[in-house]
Amino acid sequence: MAQDRLTRQLDFLVEIDKLKTVYRRTYLAADPDRRENSAEHSWHATLLAMVLSEYSRVHIEVPRVIEMLLVHDIVEIDTGNKGICEKQDDSEKQAREQKAAERIFSLLPPDQHQDLMDLWKEFEAGTTAEAKFAQTLDRIIPLIHNYYTQGKRWKEDGMTFDQVYSDNKIINESSARLWEYVLSLINDSLEKGYLKK
Amino acid sequence: MAQDRLTRQLDFLVEIDKLKTVYRRTYLAADPDRRENSAEHSWHATLLAMVLSEYSRVHIEVPRVIEMLLVHDIVEIDTGNKGICEKQDDSEKQAREQKAAERIFSLLPPDQHQDLMDLWKEFEAGTTAEAKFAQTLDRIIPLIHNYYTQGKRWKEDGMTFDQVYSDNKIINESSARLWEYVLSLINDSLEKGYLKK
Repeated sequence: MAQDRLTRQLDFLVEIDKLKTVYRRTYLAADPDRRENSAEHSWHATLLAMVLSEYSRVHIEVPRVIEMLLVHDIVEIDTGNKGICEKQDDSEKQAREQKAAERIFSLLPPDQHQDLMDLWKEFEAGTTAEAKFAQTLDRIIPLIHNYYTQGKRWKEDGMTFDQVYSDNKIINESSARLWEYVLSLINDSLEKGYLKK
Repeated sequence: MAQDRLTRQLDFLVEIDKLKTVYRRTYLAADPDRRENSAEHSWHATLLAMVLSEYSRVHIEVPRVIEMLLVHDIVEIDTGNKGICEKQDDSEKQAREQKAAERIFSLLPPDQHQDLMDLWKEFEAGTTAEAKFAQTLDRIIPLIHNYYTQGKRWKEDGMTFDQVYSDNKIINESSARLWEYVLSLINDSLEKGYLKK
């Protein structure tokens, strides 16, 4: 039985290697020739949690934010990455993600299946302070990547200042200071021509 | 002053994007055509911590293990990745890594510079239970990758069973159960011809 438990855990840990082959739309600041994958993105997001959590409007449990960010994109192994600008039917998207979460997390033994499912659902629901802050950090990374690649992806997609503003203004709910930073960054992007008016 | 603090934090967070461009020697199980980078590897290692910590011989603080694994490879931005099989002068290697840690972590405000330096030094020293277990997880990932790519990297480097056994037997100090797993994996690799006798 103990054997079976470890076998299931390892099957899950081998399966999630696939997240390294799921590519996002944004390009790396460190290498604008290639897009970011969702595994390295998840790592980067957790480093933001370790460094920027002092800017949350309310007290948050940082280890919980870190755990949420570590698992938040695993469903993309089945669904692929969908940017916030890609319009899709919300209920259909949710059903596909739910199915992916069930398939992948259920590779684990029941207790861990439940733990990771709870983390993922909390992140998706975005109602706890920890989930809101995790979502904020998840949004900041593509903004940084776009800014430091002179708006490479924004230009490809013809993004406007108004679109990026409205997609991200929710950041202000979890952090006034980080929203102030994001605002300065997108204002500067408009001025430099990375974003259209 | 608050402005300056956030600026330093963001400078660090942009700098570490470079870890996504540092490549390791092992190939991905999910895509044997490319090597793994150190950022996505760090993410994978933390997931092992979330899932396998029950196998530690002694009680460990899992959030500490996770934080150590998140930062353990950041020095490679300056030093590159060196596998355990690449012989180098240890004191020279340590001096280069120390210099890299100083440069990169000192981008942060002093308190966070100290925190991340402490995490990195703890991992490197490998004396606490948390550091030993983190090192064990760090070793298991390339073993999995080699096994699931039919020993692709092992074959390129002409690795023998004895080398891999002796490079990894230290795993038994932090986890009997995980060492048992590793042993079954390398025994099977010898039988299947992924490793030379």
